[in-house]
Amino acid sequence: MGSKGLLIVISGPSGTGKGTVCRKLLKECKDLHLSVSVTTRQPRPGEIDGKSYFFVDKEKFMEMKERNQFLEYAEVYGNYYGTPKEYVLNMLNSGRDVLLEIDIQGALQVKETFRDGVFIFVVPPSMEELKNRIIKRGSETQETFKTRFNSAFNELEYCVQYNYVVINDSVVKACEKIKAIITAERCKVRRNMDLFAALRGGMQKT
Amino acid sequence: MGSKGLLIVISGPSGTGKGTVCRKLLKECKDLHLSVSVTTRQPRPGEIDGKSYFFVDKEKFMEMKERNQFLEYAEVYGNYYGTPKEYVLNMLNSGRDVLLEIDIQGALQVKETFRDGVFIFVVPPSMEELKNRIIKRGSETQETFKTRFNSAFNELEYCVQYNYVVINDSVVKACEKIKAIITAERCKVRRNMDLFAALRGGMQKT
Repeated sequence: MGSKGLLIVISGPSGTGKGTVCRKLLKECKDLHLSVSVTTRQPRPGEIDGKSYFFVDKEKFMEMKERNQFLEYAEVYGNYYGTPKEYVLNMLNSGRDVLLEIDIQGALQVKETFRDGVFIFVVPPSMEELKNRIIKRGSETQETFKTRFNSAFNELEYCVQYNYVVINDSVVKACEKIKAIITAERCKVRRNMDLFAALRGGMQKT
Repeated sequence: MGSKGLLIVISGPSGTGKGTVCRKLLKECKDLHLSVSVTTRQPRPGEIDGKSYFFVDKEKFMEMKERNQFLEYAEVYGNYYGTPKEYVLNMLNSGRDVLLEIDIQGALQVKETFRDGVFIFVVPPSMEELKNRIIKRGSETQETFKTRFNSAFNELEYCVQYNYVVINDSVVKACEKIKAIITAERCKVRRNMDLFAALRGGMQKT
């Protein structure tokens, strides 16, 4: 266990800016590896296949799902998203820390398999601020705005399933907190049992 | 719960340098308050009554013990040490974070009362290094050296009772880790339930 990597799951209501936080985190922490998701949604301008997502069609996605190749998967606004299981397990087993940025449904599925993961819930500083952020995204119609806002409101209930909550009042501050959480988790006694064995093994009593 | 302060308990085998780590930590974190212990041992040069310790005689200590005024107390090498309960509770209830630097016996007693405390176990980088540090303290006879070293060796077993382990390979690094642990603990979901209530209370669904 001690030599295995940490699975860091960053999630939270939609529109809290967790994507921006994760991008900054990955830039600053070179020993943190992003897990790339598989999706059936269309690439947005600038998104790169294999880096932003693995873009697949619905048929391919369903085939992977049937073969139990996802750690979690979900349908969000008509599109499918999934985390490729083997890819994440290989990274963790080789001792690398893996970052998952996923929605709440996905995070809860991951928690069923990986209770030892580090589950971080990102929230906006206020619901008023969340409203502004959803509106600023621009591409929303009044109908999708309503769906997103009400969904975000309801999703706050899931906070109790997480280990940590980080307020995204500023991206810099939120990143600093997540970095502190990662450092702290690496210091957890149960993740360091091999250290004690090494200490005691290295020297006999006098 | 959310508005209450954190109880940070720093402990570990004797000779691991936890005193030095705590002094640096207190210098850098102005919002961290040291709990001053009561002791029957003689003041060392430079120690100030009410700041380093509350120095009392054995009679007074036993009186306090009988009145259940200690959060924990212990006899170490023939001297008594205790943490005054009311003093710590008052600070925590007023929302201040309190640092306790105590031996392992004391930490385990505190844990019985404060399961919600943050228990940090400081260890030397190696037992060889611990040996050198105990010898460097100078004032030790061969007999007290043996007692200290064997006791430190046996005390490693208590690590499982703690939440975190911090290797004191350098005081700077150890302090950074403890600061990260404090930041992370403040982000724990169960310590922030009032935040979620405030978020949901601040805005109705649309």
